[in-house]
Amino acid sequence: MHPAVHFCSVCGSPVQLGVPPGDSLPRHICPNCHTIHYQNPRMVVGTVPVWEDKILLCRRAIEPRHGYWTLPAGFMENGESLEQAAARETQEEAGGAVDLADLFAVVSIPHIHQVHFFYRARLLTQNLAPGEETLEVGFFNEADIPWQDLAFRSVSYALRQFFQDRQQGLARLHSIALTPTSPD
Amino acid sequence: MHPAVHFCSVCGSPVQLGVPPGDSLPRHICPNCHTIHYQNPRMVVGTVPVWEDKILLCRRAIEPRHGYWTLPAGFMENGESLEQAAARETQEEAGGAVDLADLFAVVSIPHIHQVHFFYRARLLTQNLAPGEETLEVGFFNEADIPWQDLAFRSVSYALRQFFQDRQQGLARLHSIALTPTSPD
Repeated sequence: MHPAVHFCSVCGSPVQLGVPPGDSLPRHICPNCHTIHYQNPRMVVGTVPVWEDKILLCRRAIEPRHGYWTLPAGFMENGESLEQAAARETQEEAGGAVDLADLFAVVSIPHIHQVHFFYRARLLTQNLAPGEETLEVGFFNEADIPWQDLAFRSVSYALRQFFQDRQQGLARLHSIALTPTSPD
Repeated sequence: MHPAVHFCSVCGSPVQLGVPPGDSLPRHICPNCHTIHYQNPRMVVGTVPVWEDKILLCRRAIEPRHGYWTLPAGFMENGESLEQAAARETQEEAGGAVDLADLFAVVSIPHIHQVHFFYRARLLTQNLAPGEETLEVGFFNEADIPWQDLAFRSVSYALRQFFQDRQQGLARLHSIALTPTSPD
């Protein structure tokens, strides 16, 4: 989540809550330098990397959900495109390059201020050197996906849509908003 | 763009630049409370609102690009989904409710740390009460779109893809990354 905003990052003065002129929501405003500190949702971007008929998953070496399986994905950085972020995160976490295909799953998670984006992708090598956020990587057939040990609901959602599309020979965009209580 | 980070928003101490353990990029880190201040791209979300055969555009009452025509769109807020953001921004700027359809254009703009998302949408009323960010609204046939007076390149891109898809009877997702020098 976002760090608290008690002080202005520009000048260090204590901020105040207020609705700026023309705005409709309270923001953290600096009474000294008048900077408005907006907080906005973050993008998490990743891929479903395919090698032959199998899907690559990564077992997480970091919290949250240490030890659980996930798709390679992470926070988009300033200065890159969505596609660059998807390829970079796959390279970092799985340790191999991909040919990126289409964006196929968009998962809004309003209560944690995130939107997750997943691309279909083709791994260019089976010889992977996973990064330090990954305990191990594995290649899974659809029947072998460890559904009970997946790290995040957005990952379950993306994988379900991926397999359904593949079975039906479709390439569609799927979109959902998850709530704290929505089923997987 | 993002405000500068000279001070920690949590405790007010001057921050330092450094690469956190396990990270690969320099971040602003607080030496006092150890908060890492990540900066990430922001999402701008909007619609192409249709009434009969016509497209609704809004003339901007605010900078940047005061006086130029745009699609209703704005920064996604914490606590909402992409779809809620698209509908809210349309309501706020055009002053009318929409039936939201599919996400069809995704425009990464790495040099300003933004990604723009546009949905197809059907206006539910022609009687609009535009908000204070809008000078006026107008309904345009494809032949009458003021291409030279559009506010942003992402708007031009979305409109071009929208009309091309409509002519071809398609509903596809289009994605592009704009650079400072890429043509419209």
